[in-house]
Amino acid sequence: MIVVMKSHCSEESIEHVLSFLENHGLSGHPSRGVERTIIGVLGAVGPTGTPGSIGGINPSVGEALESLPGVESVLRVSKPYKLASREFHPEDTVVNILAPCVSEGVVHIGRNAVVLMAGPCTVESEKQLMTTAQAVRKEGAVILRGGAFKPSTSPYGFRGMGEEGLKLLAKARAEFGLAVITEVMTPTDVPMVCEYADILQIGTRNMQNYMLLDEVGRVEKPVVLKRGMSATIEEWLLAAEYVLSQGNRNVILCERGIRTFEKMTRNTMDISAIPLIKQLSHLPVISDPSQGTGRRDLVGPLALASIAAGTDGLLIEVHPNPDEALKDGAQSLTLEQFQCLMPQIQAVAHAISRTVVTE
Amino acid sequence: MIVVMKSHCSEESIEHVLSFLENHGLSGHPSRGVERTIIGVLGAVGPTGTPGSIGGINPSVGEALESLPGVESVLRVSKPYKLASREFHPEDTVVNILAPCVSEGVVHIGRNAVVLMAGPCTVESEKQLMTTAQAVRKEGAVILRGGAFKPSTSPYGFRGMGEEGLKLLAKARAEFGLAVITEVMTPTDVPMVCEYADILQIGTRNMQNYMLLDEVGRVEKPVVLKRGMSATIEEWLLAAEYVLSQGNRNVILCERGIRTFEKMTRNTMDISAIPLIKQLSHLPVISDPSQGTGRRDLVGPLALASIAAGTDGLLIEVHPNPDEALKDGAQSLTLEQFQCLMPQIQAVAHAISRTVVTE
Amino acid sequence: MIVVMKSHCSEESIEHVLSFLENHGLSGHPSRGVERTIIGVLGAVGPTGTPGSIGGINPSVGEALESLPGVESVLRVSKPYKLASREFHPEDTVVNILAPCVSEGVVHIGRNAVVLMAGPCTVESEKQLMTTAQAVRKEGAVILRGGAFKPSTSPYGFRGMGEEGLKLLAKARAEFGLAVITEVMTPTDVPMVCEYADILQIGTRNMQNYMLLDEVGRVEKPVVLKRGMSATIEEWLLAAEYVLSQGNRNVILCERGIRTFEKMTRNTMDISAIPLIKQLSHLPVISDPSQGTGRRDLVGPLALASIAAGTDGLLIEVHPNPDEALKDGAQSLTLEQFQCLMPQIQAVAHAISRTVVTE
Amino acid sequence: MIVVMKSHCSEESIEHVLSFLENHGLSGHPSRGVERTIIGVLGAVGPTGTPGSIGGINPSVGEALESLPGVESVLRVSKPYKLASREFHPEDTVVNILAPCVSEGVVHIGRNAVVLMAGPCTVESEKQLMTTAQAVRKEGAVILRGGAFKPSTSPYGFRGMGEEGLKLLAKARAEFGLAVITEVMTPTDVPMVCEYADILQIGTRNMQNYMLLDEVGRVEKPVVLKRGMSATIEEWLLAAEYVLSQGNRNVILCERGIRTFEKMTRNTMDISAIPLIKQLSHLPVISDPSQGTGRRDLVGPLALASIAAGTDGLLIEVHPNPDEALKDGAQSLTLEQFQCLMPQIQAVAHAISRTVVTE
Repeated sequence: MIVVMKSHCSEESIEHVLSFLENHGLSGHPSRGVERTIIGVLGAVGPTGTPGSIGGINPSVGEALESLPGVESVLRVSKPYKLASREFHPEDTVVNILAPCVSEGVVHIGRNAVVLMAGPCTVESEKQLMTTAQAVRKEGAVILRGGAFKPSTSPYGFRGMGEEGLKLLAKARAEFGLAVITEVMTPTDVPMVCEYADILQIGTRNMQNYMLLDEVGRVEKPVVLKRGMSATIEEWLLAAEYVLSQGNRNVILCERGIRTFEKMTRNTMDISAIPLIKQLSHLPVISDPSQGTGRRDLVGPLALASIAAGTDGLLIEVHPNPDEALKDGAQSLTLEQFQCLMPQIQAVAHAISRTVVTE
Repeated sequence: MIVVMKSHCSEESIEHVLSFLENHGLSGHPSRGVERTIIGVLGAVGPTGTPGSIGGINPSVGEALESLPGVESVLRVSKPYKLASREFHPEDTVVNILAPCVSEGVVHIGRNAVVLMAGPCTVESEKQLMTTAQAVRKEGAVILRGGAFKPSTSPYGFRGMGEEGLKLLAKARAEFGLAVITEVMTPTDVPMVCEYADILQIGTRNMQNYMLLDEVGRVEKPVVLKRGMSATIEEWLLAAEYVLSQGNRNVILCERGIRTFEKMTRNTMDISAIPLIKQLSHLPVISDPSQGTGRRDLVGPLALASIAAGTDGLLIEVHPNPDEALKDGAQSLTLEQFQCLMPQIQAVAHAISRTVVTE
Repeated sequence: MIVVMKSHCSEESIEHVLSFLENHGLSGHPSRGVERTIIGVLGAVGPTGTPGSIGGINPSVGEALESLPGVESVLRVSKPYKLASREFHPEDTVVNILAPCVSEGVVHIGRNAVVLMAGPCTVESEKQLMTTAQAVRKEGAVILRGGAFKPSTSPYGFRGMGEEGLKLLAKARAEFGLAVITEVMTPTDVPMVCEYADILQIGTRNMQNYMLLDEVGRVEKPVVLKRGMSATIEEWLLAAEYVLSQGNRNVILCERGIRTFEKMTRNTMDISAIPLIKQLSHLPVISDPSQGTGRRDLVGPLALASIAAGTDGLLIEVHPNPDEALKDGAQSLTLEQFQCLMPQIQAVAHAISRTVVTE
Repeated sequence: MIVVMKSHCSEESIEHVLSFLENHGLSGHPSRGVERTIIGVLGAVGPTGTPGSIGGINPSVGEALESLPGVESVLRVSKPYKLASREFHPEDTVVNILAPCVSEGVVHIGRNAVVLMAGPCTVESEKQLMTTAQAVRKEGAVILRGGAFKPSTSPYGFRGMGEEGLKLLAKARAEFGLAVITEVMTPTDVPMVCEYADILQIGTRNMQNYMLLDEVGRVEKPVVLKRGMSATIEEWLLAAEYVLSQGNRNVILCERGIRTFEKMTRNTMDISAIPLIKQLSHLPVISDPSQGTGRRDLVGPLALASIAAGTDGLLIEVHPNPDEALKDGAQSLTLEQFQCLMPQIQAVAHAISRTVVTE
């Protein structure tokens, strides 16, 4: 951490900062320039070895420093997350998911082979789910997505089938060997969703629902953590840090678009987040072009762009009859469209020397 | 609702839309122009009289329509919220809060007199809270703010004193007659927070935590609903609708800044939201210039601007020693600064023919 | 255009709108619903056949309508641009550029084969430009980019070599057969830049410099129109319409990132703009991952993502010694990095059945 | 400037940075921490005493440093603008405008008394302008606004009356004693607009039209510089620096709203920019609530909020018949609305111990 003092601040205020640092177990090293003084800060806060010492500084202390007299700004040099960082864990994390449909019985997310997760936005009926599950499996998807608990912007919208939906997902898994990913929205539902699902999804609106993050951090199921719709990449990694710091190391990040001024798409996919996450973190990163664009006609191009940029997987909404979908029909592919997209995904993956898990 | 067909779309696709509407209990009225056809939609969805008939249309049906062949766009004419709308409830809602410190024993939020809520960002100790409570009461604040459960972007930041903090807040209330507002972060904590607090605060990160909204909708305590950091005004009113539709009609909206590209302030306060909410809704609206700017030196100007624009109240962070605050010190006023601000707030309120509740 | 009246507005205000429309040469067709009346608007404004009749309505008239009493909103059904729209011109526009280095002598932008434009951000010296030109040509680029007039956020930054820089570009063209693209910043410079360049570039800060757009619309040189850093796709197409409506039909759109809250990249590339432009317009669209990310380490992944999403070309900054570049060194590839990227670009292009122009 | 090296970077890369600094006339002072090394940079670039030495560093050199091997980031400690900064010029700049209608004959912008600039968005006819000028003068405005050259998003929109409009503005000045502010859009128009106007306005789309900024920097007429719709406060001050550095010291900044995701208002007014500019700069700052909101019903509240936050003036659109305005009618006040607003503006100004210039 670096404390930048105001130009020509008093010697007294420099001393004040230095003694403040000392009181918080830190040491300050001033460099006095012609115009201004800069103070380098060293030393950890909190009991040695605790995560509190990340970046050498407790975030609360950094904030307090900013308001000391004579201080112009406080620059954080180190990253505020640790367990999520590639510096702490240089090798790629690979998350393993049981999926009977593949020959090995396990799908690895974060290796060379890209993983496809497909299915309806929301579980609506047994027929809808089974038809879709069978079709996406046939095309090569190995993980089935489908919401049983759905966040709806309006209280009068469809909020999902609840446990009935989870049971249908489990049935589809039993029948087609697909692993299942589904959203969990509140801490008390975590045990129930764990019973039925292979991967827990934290939705964009809950990326900073810290008690939910704590709770999924305490179980062993892999977690797909969607980026908050206005979350910076740093905030997103800090949300992952919540889960990791509770002990669950199976976190997969999912880029799903951010909120911008452009309204022709539901969100603006931040494709650069994919290679950035790969640099900053060891965690796998996947991409959701359905939520990311909100438009069926853009799902294909953005799926391919995600692959080209290095995504480890895709989450794609597919519906046997999108015109009658109860939710997000406008962004769901038809089964035919999904069928057409698969060979393109494989071709682009091969172009960058990757493969696609299909069996 | 209006369905705009693509220019020169087929007659078949028009018929398809009309029969889709009929299947969903709606009637379509096409106007055939030279270039394109427009279909007006009438009639409610869902059992008559249920909130499902708001705007004449279930939101899911609207989405499905958008993906029918030949449809260019679907324009929603009616507002998607009802209970929160001024059309439904033309008179201003006034939320009454028990506060022994005022002569009447009750503070009314949403009347002519502006209400001040002040106190530390986070409850840190008995001494800190009591000193601050006494001081803000002395200057005229009638409601004490203070976080016992704090959302922290980092898992290693200070997350609040929990129930201990709630007890201190109750103690401050007993001693100084101030009503108490404090944040609740998860559904299971609602009963406990209700025991100690007069107003439940839903923080910006939880504006779309629907299960929490449902839960606070089922209790009788007034709710301050902060705007999500990237929430549109419509989404914010829909979040209020969640609470209202569960039966709790004591909702107060709080503008606290939105996320933009400008990084010199923590958030950008959307002052225009204050008069807009007054037009669109009957609910009271308050303003949080501390969170809204993140800078102590801007709290005063933005507090006054909020008053001038018509806010019903202010939430202001005050700390006896902000340099040592464990959280958000940089945006807390000192007791002296708060003391200086109060007469300015009163002067601006008087300038627009309002008063400030102080006793 | 559709005028939505407020619910339960007076009959008088409906009549007012109808007579206003008549006074402006339009006809209004009211549909009276139970709750509200909607008025469809037909008929062109302005002398028949002029572009003023686009969308059936003069934009100024639309704005005036919004403020009539009883009017809730005015919905524009038709697109506000015409010459840029695919509806008006269904076939893809192909822009032809003379480039002696290819066997045919002409490069076609907007056909199957993707076109590479590469070179330094800014022309700094003869040696720098010639080294780079030779190297990028060797790897397959057919168009040389390089700024002679540079927009600099600070008045104390480097603003380019001016005409000297243009002469060096012409020299590089003569020597290596590359076509040349360079920025023009003000109307009076257009003739001079036309003398030396094959393509005029309008930078992001000038996307709404309407007098500059008019001026480049009156010449015959192809124009690359960069998206404004906060321009919606509609505004961008309207800027293209400015150029087209002056007679110059050789417009190429260039996505270069938009401004968002995320600060880890200089801009956020809106990859979805590429397929969207292809749908809405017949104009070619290219992509600038150097400006779009501002980081050398992200240029490659975003270049490949752009190709996968359907871009017709790439603008890439390359510098023989980026560490010493006077401008934007941080986002320039080294010659070696560019050399590595080329085969990946070709592989991804082939994966989506496209080629790359190289000779 | 501070160079932060990557953790555990090589000694060689530290040496490289140090020699790079030396080659550019700077000296580097490394502090070697346990985890990483930080290098403080001292000394000016460029001929001593030139503006190039602002912040001790040429911006291009800073960019180049960022791409040296082993460098994690480069932190700029000093502000990149100088002439616009309060550090350089501690006293408030007061801009004086000749206005025969006030008793002193001169209006001072930047003193205690707030200045009102009002008039139509666009000059449409002699009758419209004279009616409006007379009315706004009667209510106390001392400066007449009105566009003769109008930026229109669509090439088919109304682009203003040009020199005819300027002549009408001059006529209104002669008749009512109001000073005149009007927009100039391109460098070659500067002399003509200077002939007729008292203040040159640079519109939001031209905030980074550097050749226009240079040109208005070379004349003596005061300049109102509107904030670009996606400009940071720093970029805005750098645009002011362009004008100042050419010699024209009469620059007035104008907050007019920024582009955000919220679409219920045309722009989001950043009210905090008003007190921020007052801190960072000595230049006067005014506020345009008409452009800032795009809605007539919000102009009043945001005008009052601007006053409360410390604005030095207001730019308000007023039209005798907004329903028939050719441009921006929806955001123009009627004469009656303006008449009602004036006493409120005065009351709020008095509440914060300021006055309003009226005679």
